[in-house]
Amino acid sequence: MNETIGVDDALEHIERLRHGETLTTEAASAVLDLYRTGRLADYQLTAWLATLAARGLRFPEIVALTRAYLGPARREGAATREGRTVVDKHSTGGVGDKTTLVVVPLVAALGVRVCKLSGRGLGIAGGTIDKLESVPGLKLEFTASELATRLAADDLVIGSLSGDLVPGDTATYGLRSVSGCVRSAPLIAASIVSKKVAVDAEAVVFDVRYGAGALLADRESARRLAGLLVRLGGEFGLRCRAVLSDGSVPLGTAVGNAVEIDEAISFLRGTGDRRLRAECEALAVQMVRVARPNEPEQRIRERLRAAIDSGSALSMLVRMLEAQGGDTGPMLGGDGYCRPRARTAVPAPRAGWITDISSLDIGRAALRLGAGKVRADDVIDPHAGILLSRHLGDFVAEGDVIAEVFHDGRDSGDAVALVSGAFSIGRHEDCRVPGEPEPVSEDDAHSHETGMIHV
Amino acid sequence: MNETIGVDDALEHIERLRHGETLTTEAASAVLDLYRTGRLADYQLTAWLATLAARGLRFPEIVALTRAYLGPARREGAATREGRTVVDKHSTGGVGDKTTLVVVPLVAALGVRVCKLSGRGLGIAGGTIDKLESVPGLKLEFTASELATRLAADDLVIGSLSGDLVPGDTATYGLRSVSGCVRSAPLIAASIVSKKVAVDAEAVVFDVRYGAGALLADRESARRLAGLLVRLGGEFGLRCRAVLSDGSVPLGTAVGNAVEIDEAISFLRGTGDRRLRAECEALAVQMVRVARPNEPEQRIRERLRAAIDSGSALSMLVRMLEAQGGDTGPMLGGDGYCRPRARTAVPAPRAGWITDISSLDIGRAALRLGAGKVRADDVIDPHAGILLSRHLGDFVAEGDVIAEVFHDGRDSGDAVALVSGAFSIGRHEDCRVPGEPEPVSEDDAHSHETGMIHV
Repeated sequence: MNETIGVDDALEHIERLRHGETLTTEAASAVLDLYRTGRLADYQLTAWLATLAARGLRFPEIVALTRAYLGPARREGAATREGRTVVDKHSTGGVGDKTTLVVVPLVAALGVRVCKLSGRGLGIAGGTIDKLESVPGLKLEFTASELATRLAADDLVIGSLSGDLVPGDTATYGLRSVSGCVRSAPLIAASIVSKKVAVDAEAVVFDVRYGAGALLADRESARRLAGLLVRLGGEFGLRCRAVLSDGSVPLGTAVGNAVEIDEAISFLRGTGDRRLRAECEALAVQMVRVARPNEPEQRIRERLRAAIDSGSALSMLVRMLEAQGGDTGPMLGGDGYCRPRARTAVPAPRAGWITDISSLDIGRAALRLGAGKVRADDVIDPHAGILLSRHLGDFVAEGDVIAEVFHDGRDSGDAVALVSGAFSIGRHEDCRVPGEPEPVSEDDAHSHETGMIHV
Repeated sequence: MNETIGVDDALEHIERLRHGETLTTEAASAVLDLYRTGRLADYQLTAWLATLAARGLRFPEIVALTRAYLGPARREGAATREGRTVVDKHSTGGVGDKTTLVVVPLVAALGVRVCKLSGRGLGIAGGTIDKLESVPGLKLEFTASELATRLAADDLVIGSLSGDLVPGDTATYGLRSVSGCVRSAPLIAASIVSKKVAVDAEAVVFDVRYGAGALLADRESARRLAGLLVRLGGEFGLRCRAVLSDGSVPLGTAVGNAVEIDEAISFLRGTGDRRLRAECEALAVQMVRVARPNEPEQRIRERLRAAIDSGSALSMLVRMLEAQGGDTGPMLGGDGYCRPRARTAVPAPRAGWITDISSLDIGRAALRLGAGKVRADDVIDPHAGILLSRHLGDFVAEGDVIAEVFHDGRDSGDAVALVSGAFSIGRHEDCRVPGEPEPVSEDDAHSHETGMIHV
């Protein structure tokens, strides 16, 4: 990093990026360093990020950005390299996406070691760490050696690594979320892969969601991002697989933080909804296959179902929460973790079939309720959220409760209106059929475009 | 403007802009309104600006942005509409560009009414208002009626209109400068034209500079911006002309604030340098022609020269400064306004001809000295600057003083190094020949591209 690079150079670099200058690790590191040392302001960093997002980056530039995020960081988490492969999973996030809370104990129940390192919410998609903070007492921040100890003892751990492991990503992550720079494939890929490289992950399964309300608008964009993630991971020596999933409709029935923890628990008790089951199974299959490439898929599926039926996956979750100091009382007692101050029922405006439920509107409603952040200094309300009482394809009579809005008792009118508007009611034959989860082949990764990559 | 538009909508709008959403006046107004009411942070506004700049805008989107900048503003300055046409002049700014300080009194000396409304510096180009603040006591902020009074009395006025006349532009202008969003044709055009429309200008001459260190990198980009300005002005009923000029070499010998005022005064005393003379004359010709289309160009040129030779242009400047309350003592006494605490001579590193002087490096040196801002909260030092002792094409012996750096006596090493590096020394036949100023025809404006406009 050039010590003589000043704020004026950084601003000139932004101007030049627009005019075609290639992004190098050196230039990106200089910008991140200026920001981290307080010489570049938030508004200057977001201008840089927005410029990268709007201009797009070529693959070598994305590699350069990923290296800049990593900085001179040594790889941590090396203790995960004893014997069995340790698998990580990463979701690009979706409204109601609590798959992590399901698949981590589920895959661990099959004897696969899982070390799931999670992040915070980005835009309307909640983050697993935000959700898990609803569990009182739960330790979520670990040093590398604590992580190794936990993994050696129990084969599974969820959390985040303490310390500024990926300083460049830390600098940018929160600002991306609050500056409209979320849905950019190059920024997403560099952020995700840098974190996986920093913790010395071996194998990662990426869950890439598409559709209005998900990170990517359409299946093709999601396929390209999935390919980019697998390719970028490979560039840094990671074994990667990916699954595409339809995020246009909220996944499961709960959207928020504590309320999603409760739904994941119900699911592991065997009462999950069909789509949530299909997506969790698709992910779990890939997670097992990336660890044990020779195990036949059909056999994996059978074992996954058995792990739910026998309660072994649920036991794994209990063991993990207890090992991480979490209060399992609300879970074992059956009342759950979600205790909102107030609930507002949303009635169906008319009779008919529920033909669609917009993730985007539900996600924005959750944001307005405080389940996520729209400004860097917002505080998340763990109990805020939405429970979908009726689902896609259901018939409802006028006035039937189609959803419940969980809030703090203050003004929730906007959110209730958004939830109400999220439901389309019409004829049975017009009911939307969400896409099934689809694994991404390595071909998709290798055939990735060589030009400018936008979203 | 939709009252239900929230911060989340604004962020979603930024994401969508990247994905091709058309910018409307309504959407842009909503963003600007959220910012002005404190609901959108600086980093969110710069993300929006950087997105617009990097993505580019189509002509109708630039019109929409200009309308959003204007807001529901009534047009002020209507008193300028009595009899003779009142001409304004706008420079996109360049390193050492003090043409305004020369041409305003010069054109006024020919009996053309000039109401020059200026702005602050943007990036490495200093602003006329920043420069004029070096004159003690000078009143630069006027209400519309004060402006009309001054104009009726003296036929010329330089300043800025008080109050938030173009609220949208006010919100964005300072942040563009400090977030690498300066060299964007759509943002430049919307900003300039909105201000001219808001003050109810009748006729405007745009000075568009090109070359490294100027707003636009090359002559073609400058030609396109000039065409865009004339076309956009026409869309709002303004009579416009433009001049292209080469900004790759600093204009004249002084770069800074007070030091440029002093050079403009010397110029009006008849001692100006050839390029500064050519550029001022080209601009003055267009300013007279836009007011009096029938006056032959040759006759205008003769009268302009006579106005300098006779001292009438200089008298006009004295009259204007005195009328606006400025202390003309330093000017009339001959010592000038520039009184730096310390001066550092920059020696020629070797003998040879000065083949080039980089505006970009000189401009950046001036910024580092405090003659302009790199962060919104920087304070300008009016006496900081650079005096070029030798110019393009001069022969220098090793150790000859090629420039003087004016500073506050503290660390100026970076700036001195930049100034030294700005000079290329080589063979006589390699001396750069800057482009001559060139008027832009209306054809350039009408043939403007219909697609996405970047820079």
